[in-house]
This record gives sequence, structure tokens and C-alpha cells, in this order.
Amino acid sequence: MSAATASPAPEVVHVGLGERAYDILIGRDALRAGEARLAALGARAAALVTDTHVAALHGVAVTRRLEAAGLRVVPCSVPPGEGSKSFSELARVTDRLLEGRIERGDLVVALGGGVVGDLAGFAAAILRRGVRLVQIPTSLLAQVDSSVGGKTGINTAAGKNLVGAFHQPSLVIADTSLLDTLPARELRAGYAEIVKYGLIDDPGFFGWCEANGRAVLAGGPERDHAVAVSCRAKAAVVVEDEREEGRRALLNLGHTFGHALERIVRYDGARLVHGEAVAIGLVLAFRFSAARGLCDAAEADRVARHLASLGLPTGLSDVPGGFGSPEALLDAMAQDKKVKAGRLTFILARGIGRSFVAEGVPGADVLAFLAAEAARGSAP
Amino acid sequence: MSAATASPAPEVVHVGLGERAYDILIGRDALRAGEARLAALGARAAALVTDTHVAALHGVAVTRRLEAAGLRVVPCSVPPGEGSKSFSELARVTDRLLEGRIERGDLVVALGGGVVGDLAGFAAAILRRGVRLVQIPTSLLAQVDSSVGGKTGINTAAGKNLVGAFHQPSLVIADTSLLDTLPARELRAGYAEIVKYGLIDDPGFFGWCEANGRAVLAGGPERDHAVAVSCRAKAAVVVEDEREEGRRALLNLGHTFGHALERIVRYDGARLVHGEAVAIGLVLAFRFSAARGLCDAAEADRVARHLASLGLPTGLSDVPGGFGSPEALLDAMAQDKKVKAGRLTFILARGIGRSFVAEGVPGADVLAFLAAEAARGSAP
Repeated sequence: MSAATASPAPEVVHVGLGERAYDILIGRDALRAGEARLAALGARAAALVTDTHVAALHGVAVTRRLEAAGLRVVPCSVPPGEGSKSFSELARVTDRLLEGRIERGDLVVALGGGVVGDLAGFAAAILRRGVRLVQIPTSLLAQVDSSVGGKTGINTAAGKNLVGAFHQPSLVIADTSLLDTLPARELRAGYAEIVKYGLIDDPGFFGWCEANGRAVLAGGPERDHAVAVSCRAKAAVVVEDEREEGRRALLNLGHTFGHALERIVRYDGARLVHGEAVAIGLVLAFRFSAARGLCDAAEADRVARHLASLGLPTGLSDVPGGFGSPEALLDAMAQDKKVKAGRLTFILARGIGRSFVAEGVPGADVLAFLAAEAARGSAP
Repeated sequence: MSAATASPAPEVVHVGLGERAYDILIGRDALRAGEARLAALGARAAALVTDTHVAALHGVAVTRRLEAAGLRVVPCSVPPGEGSKSFSELARVTDRLLEGRIERGDLVVALGGGVVGDLAGFAAAILRRGVRLVQIPTSLLAQVDSSVGGKTGINTAAGKNLVGAFHQPSLVIADTSLLDTLPARELRAGYAEIVKYGLIDDPGFFGWCEANGRAVLAGGPERDHAVAVSCRAKAAVVVEDEREEGRRALLNLGHTFGHALERIVRYDGARLVHGEAVAIGLVLAFRFSAARGLCDAAEADRVARHLASLGLPTGLSDVPGGFGSPEALLDAMAQDKKVKAGRLTFILARGIGRSFVAEGVPGADVLAFLAAEAARGSAP
């Protein structure tokens, strides 16, 4: 632990949402530094919601931190995996928290990846009509994306995240040392969301990713930097458009395709985890942009090349077990919550770092594009 | 229908909550007058959530109004009764709404009593992380209380309304002609919530109730007046303290006792409906205040006498099947969400119209009071 003790103070990203403002602490020693922040929240108890896998890795250490901050800890573990983002698991979690007498002034601490953050965050949003939430993301994806911005939710038969709440956390602790235990595949998947920020509006950061992507995956200061840049980018968008009535939709770059692919594989993480679906979705968004004459095909190739160089999937033929058919994929997209009045909305791009919201895209165009993509090999 | 056509324009109570502001239309012709308001919301579709009982009475008429306002109607019925405020019914409703392709800009219309309003309102709060809600309350209780103020939720094993959301409606249509089909018992129960507003801070209105209570139950202009006064009183409190961090707690006068009684009878409406539990709770709150030397016992007797004169229950001995024991009742109260850090909070009164929030009431005092009440007959 001497290396951790010698770590510099964590970087602080402030999310300036007025009365819902909060800080994100980022770094290899963020948990230790977060102790005083946790104590300052003035709660008496904290429900520690995590999954059984993360509990085994970090449960004891985080419980100690919470107790050191003066909090009575009510543990609550859910099974790992997307299947826990369900009404039945949500009911189980809220029952457990009520049993544990979590009161209005208390905290729900979400310790885990995106699934735990979305589920525990939603539970916090609706328990006693809202208790405070602390996110301690343990996956790269959660640190750079899902733990920041207040989106919480569960999946239903009709699709992913179709039921949920906007519920901003009171504190986010992105301790990058927690990522040391992550499997390589999970790290890579999270990396796709980092690249996304470059592709949206920061071409310089995309260039940095091309040069440093491997170092980000390996750990070290590049990883901390990438997490901080990502959180800052996300915070800026969220502050501008908390409830996704406009600009925040840009964060869905790659996600309309990605969510549809996840639906096609029935959220089977053995086939495709979220970040992998997003990686393919990012490439498809750029290829679709190219097909519509919005950006140069070379830009799409550059995106695909970078993601592929780090072992991420980049095309429909990379979906293990197949993606069904263009028709099935379009149908899966049409159920996405970003459909307005029956028309398809995409995030498209005029080039790397030049994304925009494209509304009213005709389904026939999407279908023709998907048919062409289906015929393509995965190599850019 | 000529009488309805001749009705005066509905009274409008404005709930001034800034960007969440909305109007309540009150009167015998409010539904007809509400048509233009519904159209002005600019939605394409409306999910009409109701229960099978209300659907049979008013489903066709309200569907026609919604269609006349240009809305595609997605019907969704739940079983009548408190049992529908459950996670399983909530999941069924959201699934139905997603199947019906209710999108972000669309509406959920809650047509029914408190159960439907709370359930449909919560569904609206979490569907696609929030769609707009229109309340069309069909019970007196819902018109004067639950449809206004944005509290939504469901019950869990641990208690009533322990899971939910604050989600303000975009419009409330309190058409008092809908109350003509209410059973007398339901009307009486709702009346207890009307009396509550007088008891909180409007002694003049309580006096008006004593003089006009029977006319309110019989229908006619007194009923419309009572609904309007109640909505105005509730709106004033909600505007001041939307999320119940202070003054809004006054609206819980009678409810700490009342909720505990409902829990004791396991939400069995055959034994005790909400308003009846509140009627007993109001009397207990005043008797407890008298026992604590806060107000004159004659004030408590006056409250009990008025409620009893209209056929409402007023004491523990009026609970059909018994209320268990003082210990069981205290335990049921301790699970109430208004418990802060293990101490009991009550709304007590220094007299009629002089209620206040009393925090940190010792459990032993409550127990002694309940034991004395248990020995008392129901007549004031």
C-alpha cells in the first residue's frame, strides 16, 4: 500500500448543477481521500449496494472506509450482470434497504460497475421518494460514464433503461486503483466510452487516445488522465442539459446502434458487453455518416482502426453468434427511448470531434445502410 | 346533461411551482373545460391508467375527451384497491405503456382514486425517466389531497408509500360530477381530508365544515367549495415546501396514527379505508395533544364530535376487528418514513387550526397515550 499512500491528491471535477452540484474525486487514492467527504455528508447510515463479485474484491475495504466516516453500513448484494437491472431485483434492494432502516437523511452507496450504479441509483431515487446517492464506480465504463450525470434505471421486456429516474449523486469517488482487478475485456469495453468523448467534440483528445490508448489500458497516469478528461467532458454536457432535452443526446453517440445490438443478443454479456456494443456503434455511426455524405469514409476507417488496434469489435460481423438481420436491428432501434413521434434520431458526425443530433432519419435509409454493413467484413 | 352544460366555468387553482407550475380545474364541468387544456399540452398519445371499476363508470367518456383533444389513447386498467400499489402492478403498467409506445413527449392520465393516482403517477415519473402526468381524480379524497402536490408511490412489505417519487402533474382536472357515483362510505372517508385543512391552520374553515359537512357529502355547491378550499390550502403548502423538508409535513396531521392503523389492518379496505384511518388519526392527534397539555381536551372532543356526526370512526375501538395492541401500533408507527434517526415525529396541535410539527416525541409517551385510548369508548 506504500505506492497508494504516495499517490498525489485526487483530481476533483466539479459538476455545477446548482443545488444538485457535486464533486467527482479521481485518482489512485480517491477512496482514502473521500473519507472526509463522506463524513461531511452528515448521514447516519449508508446502504452499501454492490454485486457479489465486487463485494468479494472490495466489500471489506469500502465498508471500513464508510465506517471510518462514521456511517452504520447496511450491506446489500445483488447477482452480477445485466439481469439485475430488473423490477424484481429493484424490489429486493428497496426491501432490504427499508429492513435496514435507511432513512431520508441516509445514503445509498453504489459500489460496482454500470449495472450496480444504475440499479442502486434508481433505488436511491425512489426509496422514501429519494435519498442521497454516492457512486463508487469499479469499472472503467462506470468511472468515465454511468456514475456521472444522474441517469439511473432498469431494463424491461421492451428494452434497456426504459424505466428509471434522473437522480444526481451527492459524490462520486472514481478510485482508479479499483480498476486493477478488472478483466482485460472489461477494461477494453470501458475504453470505448473514453474514445467517444474525443469523437463527440474533442478531436485533440481522440489523437491523444490513438497515441496513449494502450497505456490507458495498462494503467498508470495515462489512465487517470483519461478518466479525468472523460468526467470533465461528461460533466460539461450534463451541466448544460441535465435532462437530455438537447445537447446531452450527443453522449448517445454510438448508442442507438449499440443498444439495438445489445437487445439483439438479449443482453448476453458473454456475447457482447455494453462497451463492445458501443465500440461497434461508434464505428457504425461514423460509417452511416459517411454513407450519408456527411463525413469522409477515411474518418470512419480511422475510428475503426483505433478501436480494432486495442482488440475492440468494430462491425456487425464481430457480433458473436450474429446480429440477426438488418430488419431485426432496425426494429430493435425503433423501440429505443430516443425515438420521438415514431422517427429515428441518431447522433451523426461531420468528422472526428464534430458530432451532432440528427432527427427524423428515415428508416429506409437505416435499413439500406445496415444491409450494406452486413455484407462487409470486420477489418476497416 | 343540461344541468352540467349550465354549470359555471370551473374554478382554477394555480400551483405556482416555477417550471413545474400547473393548474387544478375544479367544478361539475371541469372535464369538458379541460379538453382545450389537454390539447394545449401538445402530446400525441395519452396512456389512460385507471382501475377496472372506474373504467366501467367513466372510461368511455374520458376516452372521448382525450380523443377530442387529439390524443391517441392507450388504455391500461389495474385491479381496484390498495393491492395495486405494488412493484408487480407497477411493472405491468410500465410494460403496457411501453408496448403502447408512450414516448417522452406523451402523457400518462391517471383516472381514479388515490391508488390509481399514486400508481399511475409513479409510472409516469419513471417511464423513460419521466413523462408528463395528468390527474383526473374520481374520489373525493383524491380530489382534495392525493392528486395535488406530486407525491406518487407504491407500498412495500415495510409499509405504505415507502417507494415512490415526487412528480408534479402538468394538469389536474377535479370534475366534481364524477363524485356522484361514489359510495357514501368513500365520500365520508374523503371528507376527513377536507376537515384536516381546517384543523391544520384554518379554524374558520373547520367552523364552515361543522355547518356544511352534511351538504358537502350531499353534493351541490358546498362540495365544489370544499374541494376548492382544500386544493388551495394544499397548493399553498406544496408551493412553500415541495419536497416535504419542513412545513409540508403539516399535511400529515392525523397520518402517523392513520398509516399505522392501516398497516395494522394490513391495508384491508373492508376494515378501514385511508380516509377513515385519517379520521381516527385526526382525533388521536388532538387527544394526544391534549394529553401532552398542548391543547384543551374540549378541542379534541369537538373534532371527534364533528367527524362522528357524519358517520366517521373516531377512536381505536372503532377499528373493525380491533387494532391489535398499543405496542403493535407503536411498532407500526416506527416504520413510518417520517421517522428521523429513530425518533418519532408527530403533527400535534395547540388547538383547532393551530397545528405544528413536533419532533423527537418519546416512544414511551406514545405508548402510555395509546394504552389510555385503548381503554376509552369511541363516543367523544
